[in-house]
Amino acid sequence: MAKQGSPSIGVGMIGCGTVGTGVATLLSQQAELYAQRLGKPVEIRRVLVRDPAKPAAQACLPPDRFTKDPDAFFNTDDMPIVIEVAGGIDPVAAYVRRALTMGKHVITANKSLLAEQGPDLFALAHQNNASIAFEASCGGGIPIITALQFGLMANRIDALYGILNGTSNFILTAMTQDGRPYADALRDAQAKGFAEANPIMDVSGQDAGQKLAVLASLAFGTRVSGDQVACDGIDTLDSADIRFGAEMGYDIKLLAIAQRSGSGASQGISLSVEPCFVHEDTPMAQVHGSFNALSVYGHAVGHTMYYGPGAGGLPTASAVVSDLLNTASGWYPQAFAAMRLWADQHQPATVVGPDAMESRFYLRLNAKDAPGVMAKIAKVLGDAGISLSGLHQHEAAAGQFVPVVITTHEAHRSAVRQSIDQIENLDVIDGRPVCIRIADLPG
Amino acid sequence: MAKQGSPSIGVGMIGCGTVGTGVATLLSQQAELYAQRLGKPVEIRRVLVRDPAKPAAQACLPPDRFTKDPDAFFNTDDMPIVIEVAGGIDPVAAYVRRALTMGKHVITANKSLLAEQGPDLFALAHQNNASIAFEASCGGGIPIITALQFGLMANRIDALYGILNGTSNFILTAMTQDGRPYADALRDAQAKGFAEANPIMDVSGQDAGQKLAVLASLAFGTRVSGDQVACDGIDTLDSADIRFGAEMGYDIKLLAIAQRSGSGASQGISLSVEPCFVHEDTPMAQVHGSFNALSVYGHAVGHTMYYGPGAGGLPTASAVVSDLLNTASGWYPQAFAAMRLWADQHQPATVVGPDAMESRFYLRLNAKDAPGVMAKIAKVLGDAGISLSGLHQHEAAAGQFVPVVITTHEAHRSAVRQSIDQIENLDVIDGRPVCIRIADLPG
Repeated sequence: MAKQGSPSIGVGMIGCGTVGTGVATLLSQQAELYAQRLGKPVEIRRVLVRDPAKPAAQACLPPDRFTKDPDAFFNTDDMPIVIEVAGGIDPVAAYVRRALTMGKHVITANKSLLAEQGPDLFALAHQNNASIAFEASCGGGIPIITALQFGLMANRIDALYGILNGTSNFILTAMTQDGRPYADALRDAQAKGFAEANPIMDVSGQDAGQKLAVLASLAFGTRVSGDQVACDGIDTLDSADIRFGAEMGYDIKLLAIAQRSGSGASQGISLSVEPCFVHEDTPMAQVHGSFNALSVYGHAVGHTMYYGPGAGGLPTASAVVSDLLNTASGWYPQAFAAMRLWADQHQPATVVGPDAMESRFYLRLNAKDAPGVMAKIAKVLGDAGISLSGLHQHEAAAGQFVPVVITTHEAHRSAVRQSIDQIENLDVIDGRPVCIRIADLPG
Repeated sequence: MAKQGSPSIGVGMIGCGTVGTGVATLLSQQAELYAQRLGKPVEIRRVLVRDPAKPAAQACLPPDRFTKDPDAFFNTDDMPIVIEVAGGIDPVAAYVRRALTMGKHVITANKSLLAEQGPDLFALAHQNNASIAFEASCGGGIPIITALQFGLMANRIDALYGILNGTSNFILTAMTQDGRPYADALRDAQAKGFAEANPIMDVSGQDAGQKLAVLASLAFGTRVSGDQVACDGIDTLDSADIRFGAEMGYDIKLLAIAQRSGSGASQGISLSVEPCFVHEDTPMAQVHGSFNALSVYGHAVGHTMYYGPGAGGLPTASAVVSDLLNTASGWYPQAFAAMRLWADQHQPATVVGPDAMESRFYLRLNAKDAPGVMAKIAKVLGDAGISLSGLHQHEAAAGQFVPVVITTHEAHRSAVRQSIDQIENLDVIDGRPVCIRIADLPG
C-alpha cells in the first residue's frame, strides 16, 4: 500500500481527543513493534481538529501536522488511510464520505455514525474500492467485530447479549456493591471520570442501542439502525430492587439483547436495551465496573463470550490501531471487497417490537398488608396466564404497605404490561409496580 | 482461488472422526449460507482416512470421495485447500508437509503437531506461498487465534492465563460441585464422553501445555515448543484441598500460564500448566464443565477474556470451517504472506524455569496437635522469607494430627519448595505437605 519509494504508510486522523491521543501515543511508543509486524512503518501525516493548539502537546506529534482546514487535510500526499476518532455525525459524516469517495480506507470508532448511516457508508466504500474497519465502535478494545466477522464465520448467529456501556455498568456495580442510590452512584462516576457531565446517552441505554444495531447487522447478516432498538435506561432503578434481586441470587445489568424471533413469515429480530436480572452464577454477572462483555450464540459453536475494557483512551486506541495495521497490510481491504458480510450487502431486518417477546420477569408491588390482597394480585396474573416462579413477602406490621416480590415463568411482555396496569389500579396497591426483565442466559 | 470455469473451491480433508464429521455436516447443512458469504461455494473433493467404510455414512458425503491412498488424495484436480482433522504426528505430519510443498493452503486442528513442528511448517508454508490456519488447535470454537493474530495486533502481550483442556475442567467441576474424589469424577467423565479411555494427555496437563506453546509463540512473537512447558496435572488432587480452598473463597482450575519474566539480560517467558486456586469472584472461576477460557493481558487494551466450548465435534468444526472460508476468500493467505506474526519469523524464547517465578501459594500440612508445633512450622517459613497471608487450623481432639492450611504472600517457588522439604522432615508433621499455586489474576 505504500507508494513506491515511500518508506511508510501515510495515515490521516480526524479528531485528537482521548482516543486520538491514545492512537498517537501507541504509534509513537510501539513504532518498532508495529513496523516489525506489518513489514513497514506507519506514520500520521495530518490531524484534522477543531482547535489545533489543544491536542498537539499530548499527542507526541509535531504541531505542524495539525490543521482545522479539511481541504488541507484531504489534499495531503500519500495518505491512503483515514482514522476517524472525532465522533458524532456533523461534520464527521461528510469527512468520512469524502475519504471514501477518494478511495481512502477508513477506520472509525463512531457507533452513532454507523448506527445511523452504516449501510450507505459501506456501500460507498465498496463502490470506491475502499474499506471501513470499525472494531473500536463497539466493546472498546475487545475484538468482538473481528470475532463476528471472521472468527465465527461458520455460524448462523441466533442471539447476542451484551453489556456494551461502561458508564452504566460502573454505576450499577456501585449501586450493587456499595448499596448506593442511583443519583449518588452517578455523581461518583462523574467525579472519577467514568461518566460525562451530560450522561444521558449512557444512562438511557441509547449508546448501547447504537452499538447493538452495529453488532446485530453484522451478526444476523441484515441491516438495522440505532433507532430500531427499544431502549430503557438505568436512571429510574431503585436500590430496593437491586437488594431484593440479590436476595434471590440475581445481579442487575443493563443488557443489550438481539435475538431471532418467530419463524416462517413472522420471522424477525427483537432488539432491546434494558436493565435485566442475570443469575449471579453466570459469567455475565461477573462483569463489573467499566468492563464490557458480549455473549454470542452461534448454531455450530454454541455460546462464546468476549470480555474486556469497554472504553478508555488506550483500550479503544488498541482497537483503532489494530484495525489500522490490518488495513495497512492490505488483508482487511481484500476481505471487505471479497466477502459479503456488511449491511449494504443485506436486506433490512423485520424488527419485532418488545411487546411481542417472551421472557421471565421480576415484579415488585407495594401491597396493603391485609386479608385478600394476595388473592387479588394472584387473580390478575392468573387470568393473564402468567405463571409464578417465585414469591417473597417480608413480614411487617399489619395494615402497612409491604413490598411483594414476584418472579414469573416465561410470559409475553404485553401480558405482563397489561397485568401491571390492572394491578396498579387495585386499591390495595400503592404506586406503580416495578417490572424488570430476567434474562436467563443460555449456558 | 477457484480455477477458471470451476464453480466451487475444492477442499481435501484428512481424517473424518468427530471433528471431520462436524465439518462435513456444516458444509452440507449451511452450503447456501457459506456460498452467500464467500461469494462462491466450497466442496469437499476427497477425504483421506484409514478405513473408508467407517465415516462415509455419517459425513453426508458420497462414499466415492473417500480414499485411504495418499497419492489418490493428493493427485486430485482442483483442490487448493487441505483440512487436517486427523490429529497426531505420524503419518499426518508428512501429509501436511506434502500439501504445503504443493502450495496448498492447510487448515489444521492439530496442536500436537504445531507444538512440536510449528516453526518448520510455517516456514514451509511461507516458502511455498501457502498458508496454515489453526484456530481449531486451541480453545475449540472460541476464536482466540483470530483475536491474538489480528484483533489485538496493537498490543505487546504480557501474559496469558487459560483453561485450555475441557476434560480436566469437567472433572474439576464435578469434584468441586459434587464433592467427588478424583477417580470417581474421572470415571463419570468417561461415561459421559468428556474423557477418553486413556485420559493421560488431558489429566496430566500436557494437552493444555501443547496449546499454551502454540498460543505463547503467537502472543509473544517468539517460538516455544510443547516440551518447554512445565506440566503438573490434576490426578493427584485431594478433595480435601478443594474444600479448604472453597472455605477461603477459592476455586480450583487447571491453569495454563505464560508470562513475561525478568528484565534486561534475564528477560524470558515462564510457561506452566498446573492446578491453581483462583478467587471465586473472578470471571475465570465461572468457567465450568468442558468450557475453556483464555485471559490475555495486552499493554494497550489491558485484560480481555475469551470463553466458550473448548472441544466437541461442532464447536471445533466451527473453527475449522471459519478458517476454511477465510482461507478460500484469499484474505487469510494474504495476511499470512504479508505480516510477520508466525513462529518461523521469530526467535526462540528464553524459557524461565518454574522455580524462578514468584506467586502466592496454598499449603496444607498434617500437623501434630500439640504444643510448639505451630512455632516450628512458622520458623521454617519465616527463615525462608515466606510471609503468611492466611492461616487456618480447625479444632480437634488434642494429640491427633490436624490439617493446617496456610496461604502465603508472594514468594519464590524455589523457596517454597525448600520450605516444604524441611517441614516434611519435622517429626511433628505427618506425610508430605500439599502445595498449590494461587493465581491472583489481574483485573
